[in-house]
Amino acid sequence: MDRGEVKVAVMSDEEVTAGIQSMVRQSPAPFRPLVVLEFAVGAKQSAIEWMISKLQGSEATGGAELEVSAVVMTYKQQTVLYIGAKNTRLLSAADMTSLCKVYKDNHYREFTIEDMANFKGIEDVDSFLTTAEKQKLILHEMEAVRASDEEGHIPGYDKIKLWTGKSILKKYLSREIITKMYPLHEPEEIKKLGADWYQLKRVFKEQPIDDIRHYFGEKIALYFAFLGYYTIALIPPAFIGIIYFITSWQSMYREAIFAVFNLIWATIFLEVWKRYCSELSYRWGTIDMVSSKYDEPRANYYGTLGENPVTGKPEPVFPKWKRNFRFYCVTVPIVSVALGIAFYIMLGYFIMQEWADKKYASEKSWVNFSVLYLPTVIYAVLIGIVNAIYRKVAKKLNDWENHRLQSAYDNHLIVKLILFDFVNCFISLFYVAFYIQDMALLRSHLAALLITQQLIGQVQEAMVPFLFLKRRKKQVDEVLKKQNALQKKEYFNGEIAEDVQRQAGMESEMEEYNGTMDDYLEMFLQFGYVFLFSSAFPLAALWALINNVTEIRSDAFKMVKVFQRPFAESAASIGAWQVAFELISIMAVMTNCALIGMNPEVRKLLPSDVTAVNIVLIFVAVEHIILAIKVAVAYLIPDQPKWVEIELAKTAYQSKLALQEKHFQVNLSKHIHRTSQDKEKIDAVLKEKSQ
Amino acid sequence: MDRGEVKVAVMSDEEVTAGIQSMVRQSPAPFRPLVVLEFAVGAKQSAIEWMISKLQGSEATGGAELEVSAVVMTYKQQTVLYIGAKNTRLLSAADMTSLCKVYKDNHYREFTIEDMANFKGIEDVDSFLTTAEKQKLILHEMEAVRASDEEGHIPGYDKIKLWTGKSILKKYLSREIITKMYPLHEPEEIKKLGADWYQLKRVFKEQPIDDIRHYFGEKIALYFAFLGYYTIALIPPAFIGIIYFITSWQSMYREAIFAVFNLIWATIFLEVWKRYCSELSYRWGTIDMVSSKYDEPRANYYGTLGENPVTGKPEPVFPKWKRNFRFYCVTVPIVSVALGIAFYIMLGYFIMQEWADKKYASEKSWVNFSVLYLPTVIYAVLIGIVNAIYRKVAKKLNDWENHRLQSAYDNHLIVKLILFDFVNCFISLFYVAFYIQDMALLRSHLAALLITQQLIGQVQEAMVPFLFLKRRKKQVDEVLKKQNALQKKEYFNGEIAEDVQRQAGMESEMEEYNGTMDDYLEMFLQFGYVFLFSSAFPLAALWALINNVTEIRSDAFKMVKVFQRPFAESAASIGAWQVAFELISIMAVMTNCALIGMNPEVRKLLPSDVTAVNIVLIFVAVEHIILAIKVAVAYLIPDQPKWVEIELAKTAYQSKLALQEKHFQVNLSKHIHRTSQDKEKIDAVLKEKSQ
Repeated sequence: MDRGEVKVAVMSDEEVTAGIQSMVRQSPAPFRPLVVLEFAVGAKQSAIEWMISKLQGSEATGGAELEVSAVVMTYKQQTVLYIGAKNTRLLSAADMTSLCKVYKDNHYREFTIEDMANFKGIEDVDSFLTTAEKQKLILHEMEAVRASDEEGHIPGYDKIKLWTGKSILKKYLSREIITKMYPLHEPEEIKKLGADWYQLKRVFKEQPIDDIRHYFGEKIALYFAFLGYYTIALIPPAFIGIIYFITSWQSMYREAIFAVFNLIWATIFLEVWKRYCSELSYRWGTIDMVSSKYDEPRANYYGTLGENPVTGKPEPVFPKWKRNFRFYCVTVPIVSVALGIAFYIMLGYFIMQEWADKKYASEKSWVNFSVLYLPTVIYAVLIGIVNAIYRKVAKKLNDWENHRLQSAYDNHLIVKLILFDFVNCFISLFYVAFYIQDMALLRSHLAALLITQQLIGQVQEAMVPFLFLKRRKKQVDEVLKKQNALQKKEYFNGEIAEDVQRQAGMESEMEEYNGTMDDYLEMFLQFGYVFLFSSAFPLAALWALINNVTEIRSDAFKMVKVFQRPFAESAASIGAWQVAFELISIMAVMTNCALIGMNPEVRKLLPSDVTAVNIVLIFVAVEHIILAIKVAVAYLIPDQPKWVEIELAKTAYQSKLALQEKHFQVNLSKHIHRTSQDKEKIDAVLKEKSQ
Repeated sequence: MDRGEVKVAVMSDEEVTAGIQSMVRQSPAPFRPLVVLEFAVGAKQSAIEWMISKLQGSEATGGAELEVSAVVMTYKQQTVLYIGAKNTRLLSAADMTSLCKVYKDNHYREFTIEDMANFKGIEDVDSFLTTAEKQKLILHEMEAVRASDEEGHIPGYDKIKLWTGKSILKKYLSREIITKMYPLHEPEEIKKLGADWYQLKRVFKEQPIDDIRHYFGEKIALYFAFLGYYTIALIPPAFIGIIYFITSWQSMYREAIFAVFNLIWATIFLEVWKRYCSELSYRWGTIDMVSSKYDEPRANYYGTLGENPVTGKPEPVFPKWKRNFRFYCVTVPIVSVALGIAFYIMLGYFIMQEWADKKYASEKSWVNFSVLYLPTVIYAVLIGIVNAIYRKVAKKLNDWENHRLQSAYDNHLIVKLILFDFVNCFISLFYVAFYIQDMALLRSHLAALLITQQLIGQVQEAMVPFLFLKRRKKQVDEVLKKQNALQKKEYFNGEIAEDVQRQAGMESEMEEYNGTMDDYLEMFLQFGYVFLFSSAFPLAALWALINNVTEIRSDAFKMVKVFQRPFAESAASIGAWQVAFELISIMAVMTNCALIGMNPEVRKLLPSDVTAVNIVLIFVAVEHIILAIKVAVAYLIPDQPKWVEIELAKTAYQSKLALQEKHFQVNLSKHIHRTSQDKEKIDAVLKEKSQ
């Protein structure tokens, strides 16, 4: 972490030149490429060379000390860099970034080189770090190369300014001098993982979560663990939904019982998930991951050069009032307008539909039938367009708000997307339920929305990529053939094996994985459909269950076959999504109580002498009791299993003991002799002080 | 903390005898007594001697290594022990208990003897620790003397069994062999503190919170800080209450506006208090106080001897199912029955009152008038009796539940007391508000309850003690005169000055301070009266304000003049009370919305075409919006001021750096040379591993 600082201070133009020379002099040793960088077609040679010198340059000269091999395809003027790193470099980076590895006592500890002999698996230094970890470390080191005072712009691009401390790689990426950056897949591993994960014969088996984590990192593994857990949790509501569907028991309690069960069940599920999640993150050594408000800022954060109030290190400073101003005075109004537009489109849809129903529903003809569906189609198309625009705007606004930490950035983006999707998907249901107050319409509308979205989702996510996949393979083969005939190899690229180049070419054409955001969002909306209006449409859970059983497999298929390998990211929990799901489950109490309270059939069943005042009281009371039960359930289910709690307390206790031991420089077993030693020490200090 | 263990293992009968001998041999050095222990009249000599030997005995023999002087008043067969300690002993205890003191960098750190030269104020070792700290350390050391395997009972009391690891002092106290234990006041200090604190001319000045903390410890200082803060926070609602009282603006919004203001204001107050509290606890070095579930159990915890799953140290183990069984199968039913009884007494009161009103209210005579008040008197007496019994039962049940940690014990007791007092004080108000639905009655009933309770409280707390105080002074003088004539001095009591004995005799007769529980409870109930029904009785805040201005002074007077000095206790916050106040403020949203929603006058003002269904929706919506605003306010006001946050982050960062520095044994300024060193180290380890 200190390195950035040191580098910036030490860097000078002479040294940069020296770095390039040393790069040329260096004898090429065979290495295994782990990450690929693709420059834009026609990128300036000096910019490419500068980047190479930065990546290869020694740490003392501000470089990343990585191994780089360049392949230049002169026929299309494109340079591709293959990046690797020596084990010593990776271990040093692991130390600096406080990577957690398994210690000899089977617990995770921050890796240090001083103590490295005591970590498990260090004997085989090549496989001590997983490929995912190596790629993550390489990414960190590449991003940590920052511009010094003298480096005012990117060589060859006078207009692309750099400021002190700005991540050079990020600048190359944002200005599209580097167009693609992806870690390479491990063909053998991914094949095995795929076989264990999504093949048909394994539909009813658990997902290989630990293997997923090993290959893709904790963040993605937690998404799949959550998806699996949630799917299992849908079984009871789906089961009861089926019973309700096939029986016709009529009672004022019918809906109420189902709703209450669902509401409590959702709470239990979310709490039990938290426990399971803490088990996983304990097993993976990420549970202690504490992020402070004063951690290093994310690489895209910008501002005038100042210093961190805690660490005192130089970093960009962006005034809080400015961010607040942007957020409250620009983002909030824009998002509000977008929500308003979505609302009015919905309103327009209902008016159109009513008009169409009046005019054309009386006569049954083919033309009339299609006109009846016209409003829905128009609505879907409009919403699709608005949604696409909104997402772009939201992303831009979020970038512009310039959040300091990645977590703040992510959370603000999640809130923006959730808000809009919530209004987009649910506002019409709220309108039908509480304004039109038509239960039958609510049920059919809900069913239509849920099932359509799921069908579209499945086709988008599983079918389309599958079809494209086959075609892509052919394309890449052709490209490679052409390439072999035409390309000119430069630098010391002799050691990049043909099959690795082939693999890179193939993966270069794959889609980039955009993180777990969209997948969570899909689950979030589904969760809303199932629980917000469960008293109106008990079969929703069954539909969601069916969808998710295939969703797990299609998502897995995408990870394995469709997307470029993502860089592994650490995570201790599903973060803001836990809060989002909990909020929905609280909101569900309100909507369901309101739905049942407003249901005219239920109200007919109440004794006729109950006054309106008492109806107010009864339903408010019921809602509050359910909310209180939810709070009680959440409180009574501990967030961590007891064994995790004990293990964590043990670790804390032992590190405290170790610190004390170090402090006293005496063995703890000699504690019995301490008192006399203490006295001597105290006397000595006091004597000294009094002199 | 290890000491307990060592002692238990080493102790044997021979050594105990040796301990007594060494005690007799020891030459009496003059010392300043800090704590007084009074044995019961007629306590067995062997038990007294054993206790003295334990308190004086060296740590190696399982003793507390304190200084003890005994005064035996043979005329009434009573022994009084004066306990003190050498500075070295106190510093050693401060180290072992991780006491926090100010370091040379002006931050609090855990005191260690190794590093003691770097702590501020160590030059004057006598005043380095405050008297309150010394007394707390002495208490800790006395309580830490535990029975060993061979010590099956207290000498002289064959029937009073001890089990291994049981605190001997606690046993003496619980079996009343020792009847009183109190730390001595510092006459000069307390006089000065009293002058700064409760004198009339200082009514409108801030309390000397830091001095209070210095003398009484953090827990009591936080109570007074809270009381002061809360009192100031009552000014705006009291002000608005007066305006409402003197104006007669009529509108459906009149009550609503006041209620909404109060609800939001209560939230802001509680959040801002949290900030201020974190400022105080930062200033006092207690903010980092983290208590783990696996800390040492409280001294009264009992069970079979087992070991702590985290530290591995021997300690009593009491199965969780047993505690749960006792709690759910005994405590919960008993408390429920008590609540039921309180409810039926309330019901009986209303029936009696109604009967009395019918029968006697028509004719105005002196007899009738007093009969009209009879139900109230009977109700008050009954409730008083039930309350007194319940408090005893609750305390016994809480002891019997055998909670492991002091915090769990406190919280369970708080919940028990709160629940009953809540029902006791508020159930009649709820009955009037929501069952009888009579606003005028609610207002008068609320006013009667609030004002009566406050008047009684003031008399009980300030007047009575004041009157008793004068009388007591005389008594003590007489006792001391008699004593001087009759007492026989034994052991080496020559050094206990006459005035200290006089002071101890005086303080021995003072009431024991029972902790902040009752004071918080009083504020809690008052908070409930003011905010739960604020739309019904806007003047409540004014009455509470008037009460609290005097309450601060009378509470302060009690602390200074009426009670024995309490042992200082650390605290980082007001703990469970914060939650209790927040719960009331949430409940207040519901009660106020319901009150306004049910008010027939308000409902008359609504447009007449609003259906009952929509009334349901409107008031539920309003309540939820207010709750949402409360959540938003609580979220938007950070729990810690920014400077506290930065200071804490700095401390954490610096200790992390220090740890790393220790780890590498290299100076951080040499970091730039690390890479090459790392490589050598890695190569060396790998070479070694591969051999």
